Amino acid sequence: LLAAADALVESVHFRRDEPPFLLGRKALAVNLSDIAAMGGRPTHFLLTLLLPRDLPWDFLRRLLEGMAASAREHQVKLAGGDTCVSPGPLGISISVLGETRSASPPPLMRRGARPGDAIYVSGPLGASALGRRLLEAGWKPRLDRSGRKVAAAVPPKPGRAGRAERVRAAEALRAHLDPRPRLDLGGWLRARGAATAAMDVSDGLALDLWRLTQASGVGARLLEPAIPIADPARRLAGAVGADPLALALHGGEDYELIFTVPPSRERQAIRAGGLFIGWITRGGGLVMSPASGPSKSLRPEGFDHFREPRG
Amino acid sequence: LLAAADALVESVHFRRDEPPFLLGRKALAVNLSDIAAMGGRPTHFLLTLLLPRDLPWDFLRRLLEGMAASAREHQVKLAGGDTCVSPGPLGISISVLGETRSASPPPLMRRGARPGDAIYVSGPLGASALGRRLLEAGWKPRLDRSGRKVAAAVPPKPGRAGRAERVRAAEALRAHLDPRPRLDLGGWLRARGAATAAMDVSDGLALDLWRLTQASGVGARLLEPAIPIADPARRLAGAVGADPLALALHGGEDYELIFTVPPSRERQAIRAGGLFIGWITRGGGLVMSPASGPSKSLRPEGFDHFREPRG
Repeated sequence: LLAAADALVESVHFRRDEPPFLLGRKALAVNLSDIAAMGGRPTHFLLTLLLPRDLPWDFLRRLLEGMAASAREHQVKLAGGDTCVSPGPLGISISVLGETRSASPPPLMRRGARPGDAIYVSGPLGASALGRRLLEAGWKPRLDRSGRKVAAAVPPKPGRAGRAERVRAAEALRAHLDPRPRLDLGGWLRARGAATAAMDVSDGLALDLWRLTQASGVGARLLEPAIPIADPARRLAGAVGADPLALALHGGEDYELIFTVPPSRERQAIRAGGLFIGWITRGGGLVMSPASGPSKSLRPEGFDHFREPRG
Repeated sequence: LLAAADALVESVHFRRDEPPFLLGRKALAVNLSDIAAMGGRPTHFLLTLLLPRDLPWDFLRRLLEGMAASAREHQVKLAGGDTCVSPGPLGISISVLGETRSASPPPLMRRGARPGDAIYVSGPLGASALGRRLLEAGWKPRLDRSGRKVAAAVPPKPGRAGRAERVRAAEALRAHLDPRPRLDLGGWLRARGAATAAMDVSDGLALDLWRLTQASGVGARLLEPAIPIADPARRLAGAVGADPLALALHGGEDYELIFTVPPSRERQAIRAGGLFIGWITRGGGLVMSPASGPSKSLRPEGFDHFREPRG
């Protein structure tokens, strides 16, 4: 039996002008991602809604439709929950229960990484954080006819963005508003007993990897040129005054998996689509080795709710 | 496997001047009560905290101490959770997982009540709702030396309340601030297969019994003289401008169990401490029969978050 809980809070994790269908789907997806990181199969969820009195009924309806769509897609059932009025923001608090089909191999945990293990991440990073910055800068998603997909990105000032820029912005908004839990990969890694530790990237690679190393009692050395920066983050970060590498390291909400494998398992990690980013070390915290020059310590900073308010 | 979720939200369910130790214990207790109503044994909980930036560290520490005390007492383990900043109120969202020691008899559910079943409640009602009214009227709890128990009630104007009144007020504050989940009773009822349906009284007898009848596809007839009104509610309701029977029927947060039993099991229900309040009927919603005169329909009203804001 596996269990995880994650909440989305208005003006911390989202703004009310975001599409409610996608918000509902994301609220469940970020929880399914926790189960994915354990290599489990989600089965049930509990939903607690804190609803402001002024929330339009239609917003709530669309939000629940999005959540139901995600629940159907991933075959998880609503098992209960609670609904309260909120004198403040809209809050969506979800707990997901899951299982592993067999008792062995055991679920993937944050602890278990060993010195010498290689560190992999399941995909490029930073697109979601860029998407958040674009929303803050006034970009809007335009949904397709079904109302369930981000079809395009509309710049704050019409005509001021080229086609390539709009395509990349749409990709970033999609990553931010409609993340997909890596359930298949997590299950695959666990079933093969390939990974020694795993977790998902919710608050940013640096912070989440630091948590993994803390839980495992080890350190990590990352290779700066190996950090996979998502194409939109690489190309558009400057337009929102951000640094591409910083988005990839500290941006968060990528919901890719970080996992560690012993050297004998690297071929499997690569076959699973893993991107090599560094090694687990005996200690010494997080260290970043640039292409040339001395290594530097990498601060475990991420999307820290207590420092970074959203309007 | 059993699961339930319940949230407490500042200025809806509590005020920040309430003792944080008791608040933490209550936040877990109201969730354990859901498992009690199913006749299960709670095993794990997930905790999601929405924390305002201005929340004093000491408040949070005491809250978590209270929660830990309850977890130790009932042998439930923290299995995970999430912590976010809240731009609004303090929110405590908990999910509890539980189990039944054996697969049969099955867990107690809201559905299952049959026409002709007798309805029992596990204790007198209305004290908690009175406690809430007393707090709103300016009464304060005074804790004992351990800081873990309500020792006395302090009236808003010193010297204006007699000793008997203070004793009853303390009982009401205790019921409101420090409710105890009826885990033993729930487990006992399930193990004996005595009850056909059960749930706990969180939003008020009338509303919660209505939910039970809706889930079971039946109605209910309550006997007004049989409704057990807690002594403080009976004696002090007038002092806060409330009606004793209304507190018992609609006040909520009693966390007693409502359960239904077939006639052949009534002796067991009484031995378990159950108080008879009426019968399940074939349909017709909720009906209240007074000591004399015609029966009236009973509105399924309770502590409705969306109508009753708290300051």
